Amino acid sequence: MASRLSKTNFLGLARPTPARTRTRVPCSHTIHSAPRHTPPRKLRPTATASVRTARVAPLSLLVGGGLIASFFALAQHSEDIGFDDHRRPESLGSTDDRNPSLPRFRIADVRQHGSTSANPWVIFEDKVYDITDWVAAHPGGDVILRAAGGSIEPYWDIFSIHKSAHVREILEQYKIGYVDVADLVNGRPAAEAIEDPFEKDPIRDPRLVTHTLKPRNAEPPKEEIDREFKTPNELFYVRNHMWVPVVEETKAEEHTLEIELPDGETRRYTLAELKTKFPTHRVTAVLQCSGNRRSDMTRNAGKTNGLQWGAGAISNAEWEGVRLADVLADAGLKVADATAVTRNGKADESNPDANSLHVQFSGLEAYASSIPLPKAIDPRGDVLLAFGMNGQPLPRDHGFPLRAVVPGTVAARSVKWLSKIVVADEESTSQWQRRDYKSFGPNVGANPDWDRAPATQEMPVTSAITGVWVGDCVRKGKVPWKVAKEVPGEPVAVQGYAYSGGGRDIARVDVSLDGGKTWDQAELVDDCAKPGSCFGNKQWSWKRWRYVGQLALPTPRDGDAKPCTTVVVKATDDGYNSQPETHSSIYNVRGNLPTAWHRIRVCPSCATGPGTTGKTWTTGEVSGCGFANGAPGK
Amino acid sequence: MASRLSKTNFLGLARPTPARTRTRVPCSHTIHSAPRHTPPRKLRPTATASVRTARVAPLSLLVGGGLIASFFALAQHSEDIGFDDHRRPESLGSTDDRNPSLPRFRIADVRQHGSTSANPWVIFEDKVYDITDWVAAHPGGDVILRAAGGSIEPYWDIFSIHKSAHVREILEQYKIGYVDVADLVNGRPAAEAIEDPFEKDPIRDPRLVTHTLKPRNAEPPKEEIDREFKTPNELFYVRNHMWVPVVEETKAEEHTLEIELPDGETRRYTLAELKTKFPTHRVTAVLQCSGNRRSDMTRNAGKTNGLQWGAGAISNAEWEGVRLADVLADAGLKVADATAVTRNGKADESNPDANSLHVQFSGLEAYASSIPLPKAIDPRGDVLLAFGMNGQPLPRDHGFPLRAVVPGTVAARSVKWLSKIVVADEESTSQWQRRDYKSFGPNVGANPDWDRAPATQEMPVTSAITGVWVGDCVRKGKVPWKVAKEVPGEPVAVQGYAYSGGGRDIARVDVSLDGGKTWDQAELVDDCAKPGSCFGNKQWSWKRWRYVGQLALPTPRDGDAKPCTTVVVKATDDGYNSQPETHSSIYNVRGNLPTAWHRIRVCPSCATGPGTTGKTWTTGEVSGCGFANGAPGK
Repeated sequence: MASRLSKTNFLGLARPTPARTRTRVPCSHTIHSAPRHTPPRKLRPTATASVRTARVAPLSLLVGGGLIASFFALAQHSEDIGFDDHRRPESLGSTDDRNPSLPRFRIADVRQHGSTSANPWVIFEDKVYDITDWVAAHPGGDVILRAAGGSIEPYWDIFSIHKSAHVREILEQYKIGYVDVADLVNGRPAAEAIEDPFEKDPIRDPRLVTHTLKPRNAEPPKEEIDREFKTPNELFYVRNHMWVPVVEETKAEEHTLEIELPDGETRRYTLAELKTKFPTHRVTAVLQCSGNRRSDMTRNAGKTNGLQWGAGAISNAEWEGVRLADVLADAGLKVADATAVTRNGKADESNPDANSLHVQFSGLEAYASSIPLPKAIDPRGDVLLAFGMNGQPLPRDHGFPLRAVVPGTVAARSVKWLSKIVVADEESTSQWQRRDYKSFGPNVGANPDWDRAPATQEMPVTSAITGVWVGDCVRKGKVPWKVAKEVPGEPVAVQGYAYSGGGRDIARVDVSLDGGKTWDQAELVDDCAKPGSCFGNKQWSWKRWRYVGQLALPTPRDGDAKPCTTVVVKATDDGYNSQPETHSSIYNVRGNLPTAWHRIRVCPSCATGPGTTGKTWTTGEVSGCGFANGAPGK
Repeated sequence: MASRLSKTNFLGLARPTPARTRTRVPCSHTIHSAPRHTPPRKLRPTATASVRTARVAPLSLLVGGGLIASFFALAQHSEDIGFDDHRRPESLGSTDDRNPSLPRFRIADVRQHGSTSANPWVIFEDKVYDITDWVAAHPGGDVILRAAGGSIEPYWDIFSIHKSAHVREILEQYKIGYVDVADLVNGRPAAEAIEDPFEKDPIRDPRLVTHTLKPRNAEPPKEEIDREFKTPNELFYVRNHMWVPVVEETKAEEHTLEIELPDGETRRYTLAELKTKFPTHRVTAVLQCSGNRRSDMTRNAGKTNGLQWGAGAISNAEWEGVRLADVLADAGLKVADATAVTRNGKADESNPDANSLHVQFSGLEAYASSIPLPKAIDPRGDVLLAFGMNGQPLPRDHGFPLRAVVPGTVAARSVKWLSKIVVADEESTSQWQRRDYKSFGPNVGANPDWDRAPATQEMPVTSAITGVWVGDCVRKGKVPWKVAKEVPGEPVAVQGYAYSGGGRDIARVDVSLDGGKTWDQAELVDDCAKPGSCFGNKQWSWKRWRYVGQLALPTPRDGDAKPCTTVVVKATDDGYNSQPETHSSIYNVRGNLPTAWHRIRVCPSCATGPGTTGKTWTTGEVSGCGFANGAPGK
């Protein structure tokens, strides 16, 4: 089998040879006459320097994610460099003392050189660049075209790796002129002239708890996390690495998925073809972010980089689509019989060993990630190319019109706005595969050896408390589910979810009302009992659980103003994997897979008397009633 | 699909209808004339009361394990009853005052009624019973024939469930006479006349550390546990629930495996047929007992029932055999396409849903157990019907001539001396499937609700320290592997293994030299690097690891005579599952799956001086050198 990805670029990571070759199309309005500099040799990837390009396809066809790896990876090795080393023409008003030998362009002119132009231009500061010759060599791939026709700066705010002298040096070689002073305010294009990459993002449900606005990352409010077995689409947690690509509803059926096989053969399917050519399947599956409960790790084990998710970076839905295995087979993928291969050699040399192959997914916006091929072709793996979610077309935030859904696997592999699949002999070279979504030993600091840890695929078992009801709230029936037993003293009702990766079911949920000294088992809600409520070959959904018990009234000790108790949950899956007891034992600076026992402190706000009424309680960030919400004292 | 296993017997567990029907063969030497009593209705399983039998096949064909469930299960619910309630004819010498209306038999007569006889007899105390009519109704199945022709008491010592008035009452109905006084010593058959079921067990390597002699359960000595990547056959841990069935080497190729499909169709293969009809495959896989490291749980969390294994109830071997998937397909097994099924309904009604089926294995001696069918037919599941082990025929202790090997799954499912496979719509009804090899919450006591927990299949991640070398032993090169780095102060070298179920590889092994406060990563030995050293689609083998560090000299504190330190290991698999921190959090009275962090205390035996020589150390039950082995003080 020919290795498509064997070249190593100047950043030290293997990078692909572009699968496309482009034909130079006559330029309709070439304005610049400035000499085109050839970038210094050391900056040019060897394989692509001579490729010339024309852009005739819409953006959606051009933005292949497979090429984007290396530039992001640089972030690990270089330091940001300030951009104030160039003279900022603050005083520039109607005068223009910039290099008179270069032409001036109106912003309207630049707009003509957008992503579909044969000669894409970008603006940086007050300068104009013709990036035609750079696109094919751009380590980040065609995503650079997203900025064509306007300012590249908003994109560099997203892909901050570009804020380096090295990148600036490359760009300078393509300078063709300046923005006309008529379009400058204080020496820069007016704010309203700079496109906001997120301006076409969808409207979101206002109930979502937002962690970042651009890109949008948000989780359901705590009282909604697991209120339903299948999370309503508008409350499903949102994890975007960039903007939401725009695919017109009327053109969704024309959206094209390109599949490239290990032998280099490619096959394209429109969404309409996928829907008609292959049987439609439904799979009920959780998607969970690797950082779900990260804020809990931060609170308990130390600072972590990354979005400070609560317990809501997980949701469950019924996905509808076609099976990736069916599509790959139709596209012509042939692999050695699994019965013929060994771990380090194979009897069937005519076809590649599936155990050594990966399915690389790329999205329209630039995101890319991969899964091992055996998962993709496992008849019980239930990997979908999905176009439906809970009976509706995919919402834009969740991949409209097509996404991968890889059940049992970290959601980072369920690539949204899916436009390209490459079956190759290595993992995706994207940063999200190689420089993120991994965990390390608790001793490893801020600069881990990324190559030493496997990319997260199957998720470990986890659980969370999402609701607590105390005292009168239990006695007076304010718990949203039926409390089956009467509890003497101070009753407490607790609910939450448990989930394990790899299709492993939850065997047991242990709950402690005294910080882990004693335990009992929660009732598991049998959401899959009703026919037609769960689809798929394995347990890809979460298990919701409920528990009612007697809240032990802590005895105030000398000098202990707040004799709190701690409600704890830990789950065990059917492989008898259990959660780690502490976040400190699995601490990693990225805060990935923070799956320690979930603890919620519950504190009486005053010394308790002989009666059970009149007490007030506080507890942590959790829904429910009978307490003041807040961070209770330790 | 017809359910073969839907009847419920008087013990409340479903039990199978015997697959065989037997024809009554004329009895060649019927001596007894005593009336045959019909057992009271309440004691007779309804489905089998009228089945009459003849025994024409050798024991190896008759001992089907599928029938043995219920009687063992009774052990959970009844109490042993002493057997001294019957008059012991101590004074019986040459006189015989027993019921004169019943005949006397010489032991030589009884021997004629062995397991292949049409009318099997057994002796209990000084009485003789014709169990011909009971065999088919025996809840434990044909294993009762193992006792035919001799005393049943040694078997009741193994299957102690039989020591109840209830069982005695059943047996009494089949009494046909007494053992002749000429064969009695103190009123009982002479000891030498009673067959020892274990008498034909193989000779074992004297280095094995034996936990029980009959049946033999033994683990390698601690210095041998992981000395080799592939455990030598003679040191592979031995886990026998009963005696080792005798299959003559010259007749091994005639050993027959019967396969019964969900529709009741059966198919038989001799070992010779299996070897010639199907391709031979090799799989390198660990087998691990559910109780590996149980003694560690007992020490740290409380009393557990079961063999007190050290860290050696795990071994690794290269297995050779045919794939169960191939054999089942050849036998005619048809299941619904995995792409057609859902969790609770299916589109393809013409074939059963594999997700609801189980493969029940039975061994020649009576042991039985099952796995879910999807594991059996997974093209990457690598389930073997094995006849070879590390290049040799299976040793008798390990299943000669045929066993199941289910990689990634608790060894209790890799049934030895395999004689029958039933594909059915429920798990094996054996006690080993339903009343053992499960774990429960740490609060659950001695009488768990067995039905509430799933039968262990995939194993959780675990690891163990098997060797520690301290001080001069490291400096002077006594560590059996190359110590790559020089360590200042007091060096310590540690080795061990890590393993996870389900084919998950080990991602990382964390080692702490200070009881878990700080961590570092061990070097993983790449035993599979060499071509041909590991076979199989997934990582079914263990990962051996090594670590060298500086042993922190504990500072003696006031009143602390033994300022010990603790070496700790914990492993993480590639699904980022990790081990529980304490055994108390996963404690269960059976001591199953004791996978907590492995801790070895290391104690200086005297206060340390400024030099590093002259110190002596003690440590726990582990191999190595530089210390006195023993249980170091806390």
